[in-house]
Parts: sequence; C-alpha cells; structure tokens
Amino acid sequence: MGVLKFSVPEIFFGRGSLKYTGMCARRLGAEKIFFVSDPGLEKSGWIDQVFEILDKEGLKWVYYSDISPNPRDWQIEKGALLYKKHGCDVVLTLGGGSPMDAAKGIALVASNGGRVNDYEGANRIQLPLPPMIFIPSTASSGSDISQFAIITDMERQVKMSIISRTLVPNISIVDPALLVTKSRELLIAAAVDALSHAVEAHVSRIASPMTEVHSLKAIELIVKYLPLALENRSMDHLEKLSMAGTSAAMAFSNASLGLDHALAHSLGGMLDAVHGTIHPILLPQVMRYNLSECTDKIAQIGEVVLGRSLESPLATALAGIEQLEGYFQSLGVATRLRDIVPDRSVLPQICKMATYDSCLLSNPRKATAEDMMQICNGVW
Amino acid sequence: MGVLKFSVPEIFFGRGSLKYTGMCARRLGAEKIFFVSDPGLEKSGWIDQVFEILDKEGLKWVYYSDISPNPRDWQIEKGALLYKKHGCDVVLTLGGGSPMDAAKGIALVASNGGRVNDYEGANRIQLPLPPMIFIPSTASSGSDISQFAIITDMERQVKMSIISRTLVPNISIVDPALLVTKSRELLIAAAVDALSHAVEAHVSRIASPMTEVHSLKAIELIVKYLPLALENRSMDHLEKLSMAGTSAAMAFSNASLGLDHALAHSLGGMLDAVHGTIHPILLPQVMRYNLSECTDKIAQIGEVVLGRSLESPLATALAGIEQLEGYFQSLGVATRLRDIVPDRSVLPQICKMATYDSCLLSNPRKATAEDMMQICNGVW
Repeated sequence: MGVLKFSVPEIFFGRGSLKYTGMCARRLGAEKIFFVSDPGLEKSGWIDQVFEILDKEGLKWVYYSDISPNPRDWQIEKGALLYKKHGCDVVLTLGGGSPMDAAKGIALVASNGGRVNDYEGANRIQLPLPPMIFIPSTASSGSDISQFAIITDMERQVKMSIISRTLVPNISIVDPALLVTKSRELLIAAAVDALSHAVEAHVSRIASPMTEVHSLKAIELIVKYLPLALENRSMDHLEKLSMAGTSAAMAFSNASLGLDHALAHSLGGMLDAVHGTIHPILLPQVMRYNLSECTDKIAQIGEVVLGRSLESPLATALAGIEQLEGYFQSLGVATRLRDIVPDRSVLPQICKMATYDSCLLSNPRKATAEDMMQICNGVW
Repeated sequence: MGVLKFSVPEIFFGRGSLKYTGMCARRLGAEKIFFVSDPGLEKSGWIDQVFEILDKEGLKWVYYSDISPNPRDWQIEKGALLYKKHGCDVVLTLGGGSPMDAAKGIALVASNGGRVNDYEGANRIQLPLPPMIFIPSTASSGSDISQFAIITDMERQVKMSIISRTLVPNISIVDPALLVTKSRELLIAAAVDALSHAVEAHVSRIASPMTEVHSLKAIELIVKYLPLALENRSMDHLEKLSMAGTSAAMAFSNASLGLDHALAHSLGGMLDAVHGTIHPILLPQVMRYNLSECTDKIAQIGEVVLGRSLESPLATALAGIEQLEGYFQSLGVATRLRDIVPDRSVLPQICKMATYDSCLLSNPRKATAEDMMQICNGVW
C-alpha cells in the first residue's frame, strides 16, 4: 500500500447546527467575515438568519452574492478584490455547489494572488488559505467536505477542476433543517448523486479503509432511507440522507470517482443535464463494466444492498447490481439514455471528451472512448 | 439526534509518509518550526531524519526535548516561552503520547497566553492555535488525532485533561515504518489499547454513524491482524495495526470513552500501570456490565469478532464478549486484576477516584463506586 491521504473538515452535524456558525467563526479568529451566497437563497430566510447569528456574536461581515450557477472566473476575481479591500479574515458560505465552489476560489485568490485560472489541476496551491466555514443547502454536492472546486474559464469556455487539500474547508455545518423545503425530484437527484459518489469512491483505485467505511455507510443509508424520506418526509429520515451525503463526500473527496462521473461530467457539460438524472442510467452499466477488476468490492456493495451474501462474491455482486437497477426503477426516474439525450449522434463526442476527465484515473478498469460508446449503447 | 461534532486532522498514512513532513509544514505557512520530541527518541534516528527533511525544504527550526513521561506544566511553559522568543509559527512533534500532549500544551500557551493550567476541562480555549503537525511513534495513543491533551499539574499532583476541538492537530503523519523496532509486549499493549478505545467509543452515548464505522473497522483489524503481526512481524500486518489505531482514535476522539477507561485512568494514576495491560482484565467485564443498555451495539461488535450473527442480538453480544476473553488469553497477557494490583485494599479508593473521570459521562450505563467495586471484584 502506498501513502494514503485523508482529509475532512471539522463537521457540525444535526438539526439546529446552523446556530454554531458564529461560535465557529470566532474560534477561527474571525473579526470580519466574507459571506458568500447566491440571490436564489436570499428568499429562503436562511441568509437573514446567519446575519443575525453573526451580529449576535459581534462579528462584522461583507456579503457577496454575485454568483451564477457554474461560477465564473471573473466572479471569483471580483469577490477576491472585495475580500481584500475590506480586510476580511474568514470566508463563510451558505448554498449549493456554486456558491461553495465560488467561495473556495475567492479564498484561494485572496491569499495566493494571481488569477483563479492559474491554479487549474491538482496540487498547485502553495500558500495557506484563510479559514473557511461552509453550510451546504443541499445534501449531495459535497463541496463543503471536498478538496475540489469547479470554476468556469470564460475565455476558453471550459470548466476548470482545481484540486488541493487546502481547498477542504475548516468547518462544515450540515443542518438537515435546510432540506425540508426540497421537492421530491430534488431529494431523489441529490440522494442518487450521493449514491453514485459512494459507489465510485468504493471501487476507486485509491480507496482506503478510511474511505471504504464511509462509502459503504452512505450506500446503506440511501438504499434504506430515501424511500422512507420520500414517503413521509420526516426530519429523522431527511437527516439520514444528509448523513449519507456527508459520508459519501468523505469517501469521494479522498478516494476520487470513476467512469460514471467521467461520462456524467461530459454529458452534463454538453446537455446541461442535471447530474443526478444521469447516474441511474449509467451507474449499473459502469459497475458491470468494472466487475472483472473489482468483484470483491462490488460484492461488498451487493451485500449492503441485498442485506446478505450469496454463494460467491460474483453472485453477490451481480445480484447487487440488479437490485440497484430495480431500486432506480422504483424511484420512477429515467433509466435509459434516450430518455435524456435528444440526439444519439452526440455520443461519440461525449465519450471522447470523457477520456480527458481526471475521474477516469481512479476507475478500477481502464476505458477507451470505444469502451464508453459500448456502455452508452448498452443503456440507450 | 442532537448536534454531532466530528473532527479529525488531515492524515498522511503509510510507509514513507514521514517524507511529507517538510511539504506539509510549508503548506501550513511555516517559516520557523518548533519541533518537540523526547530524549528517548533521539537514538532512534528518526529525529535526525526529520532535521534533514526540514533542512532540505529550507525551513528553520528550534528543537525542544525537555519533556518527561506524563509531561509537566512547567515543561509546557518553558516550551511556550522558547516558541515565542524564537518567533516560531508551526508546532511539529514526533513521539508517543507525552511529547504529543506537551506539543499541544505549548501551542496552546504560546497562542492563548496564561498558564496551561488555566485551560483544564472542556472547551475553554478561545483563540486559534498555531498549525500543528504530529508524527506518532506508537500506534495507539491517538493524540495525533484527538482533541485531548493530558498535562500534569505539579502543585496539585493531578493529571489535567484539556479537551477542545482546537487541540486536534492540522496534520497527522502516520508512518508504520516507525513501528518495526517495537517489542512483542509493546505491540500487544498498543493494539489492546486501541481495541479498548474502539469498543468504548462504539457503545458511547455520543457515538454517531461517523464514529461507528471507524470503531467497528478498528475492532475488525485488530482481531484479525494482531496475531498475524506478532507471528511474522511483516510490514503489511504492522500497517494494519497502525490503521486500526488511527481508526480507533478517529472514533474515540469524537465519541469519547467509558467506564473501562475511567477505571484504567484511576488504576494507572495510582499504580503507574501500563494502560494496555489493564484493558484485557477490565474490558470484557465492563461490556457485560453495560450489556443491558446497549445490547445491539455490543452485538455489532460480536458480529465483527465472531464473523457472523447468532440467533439473537443478545446471543451474538454474549458470544462476542466470550470470544474477546479467549482472544486476550491467547495473547498471554494478564487477565485477572490480582496479576497487576499488588494490594486489594486500594480498590475502594481507585473506584472512588474513577467516579470523577469525565469518561464516565459517555458510558452507556451509569456506574457508582459500588458498581465499579463489583466489576473489580468480579475480575480479581
């Protein structure tokens, strides 16, 4: 075994944990906070609640919400200038993947200088970032836990992946109360996204005992509690989904992902498809493709999904994949690629682009563009 | 469920991970490092190796090794003065529990002022600490992972527990190569200590899904790999024990401990007994005492220890405890209290002292001094 790296933020988890925001900021040495969110969240009331918490703690803050979905390089630079102009010392964000990734970019440029585009790729950040406190408003992106930030380079029109352990926030405050207003569709998309994080992290070439325990726990929780949460929307069951998303993020942030995500990124970039709608279609087929290289690992997933082992690891693995397919069908989501891709002729281009995705590096089995075409044709 | 808190350092794990020390320090903004160890480790050669790594990275350092076992308050204050005099900015330590706890105390006093004694108890630290990088030389104390520091108040002659999430180091570098020279006795004591951390954390009143996965993984690894590591001392098996110690520490740092440790601290303080020799005697009896309050949790441990479930959770739990007793016997360690306590008349005093131990707060079943006397008499 080589050298493993495991990094997760300090986590406050549970209903009402939002109230710890001020105390956390204070403990990180905050005097003036740079608070990032997006306009869509302002009407939820959560932003005002954070303002109150900060005021009560006697903390000053600068609020920045000039963030679009798929945050852009110039939005980062504008934020970093503002951060420095006001002499801020801690970055706080409440939101989904976009404000969270933007907040990481702002913390990066404010402390390390240059443009956010200078840091594209893995491990290119040299200096420490200001302390960061993240409050996720969804249960799946995992940006509050992970070492990834995705920012759009507007000139080249590409999504840049910036990967560094210094991008792991100091503190993640996961308050499942923020989930209560989500629609059935969003709950399913988020849970399925987390499930795909967990499955791909589990079979990853760089998985470790420290990540595997979290990936299996996430799978167990989602399989068991998503149907219950959809049925009764009880806080107890929503909380299990939040826990699953957090566990899956602890796994994938440290073990990375695989072929399903390489294809999903490529499809998502071209078709603007929601991430969570792609996985039920691709994931079982990708698991079958990977099976020969990680039978025991997929059997572990099968054991969790089935609740028991069959006569051999292969049998458990195969039955587990079938069970997952049935699970996706029972959720009423699209399970064929033709349901979400309007034109089959784009597939070769999508598969070619996916070969450049860094998630492929940790997939247990190598895959060419032709292999990916076969996978896509298999689920057309 | 209330609000859970989960905090672990960034972890570099594996053979040769020591070489990342310089890079880690640089990434945390180090210019001049305060490096804490103890004289006993200097002849191991590891200290010189760290000096070389720091020199190569162009980092300055101040070395401080005036640390005794059970580090003392004045050693902390002397270290903190030296830290400030030299304008250090990062604390680094290589060693067992004593230099690690001392390093935490020095980082605390250097940044928060006053005396280390001012911070006794839970959550009394207000200001952030300088970045800390810890390299454990044993596989069990867990100080490199945990939010605890134990420092001796020389005037009152008591061991102070200082507990705060700000005491979690930024980075733990766990290099199993540091274990190769350990004796059979030390390997057993360390593994049994980690096993007791894992068992007590697992049944703790404040355990969470985030800690439970690590406690069960630690138990699984120790039961399986300690006998193999003792037999062939292969690096692969030593590495499993390092992983188990790290997993157990991730669990107990966040879930705390229980009755076995309350008694072990009290016995250890009075008799200077090695921590790891006490657990095989007390732990199974404490598990039986706790059984009525956490049958399902002990059954989960039983399932891991036995490799299967029996007809009921209670049957699995009981068989698991018996299996652990047999396991301890097979290691050839003391399994009766009379083997390590010279005089039975000290037991009432030991049990009385144990009632003040903060570990009792998270034990699943309440216990009076009389309850503890019954436990001690049962294993006399």
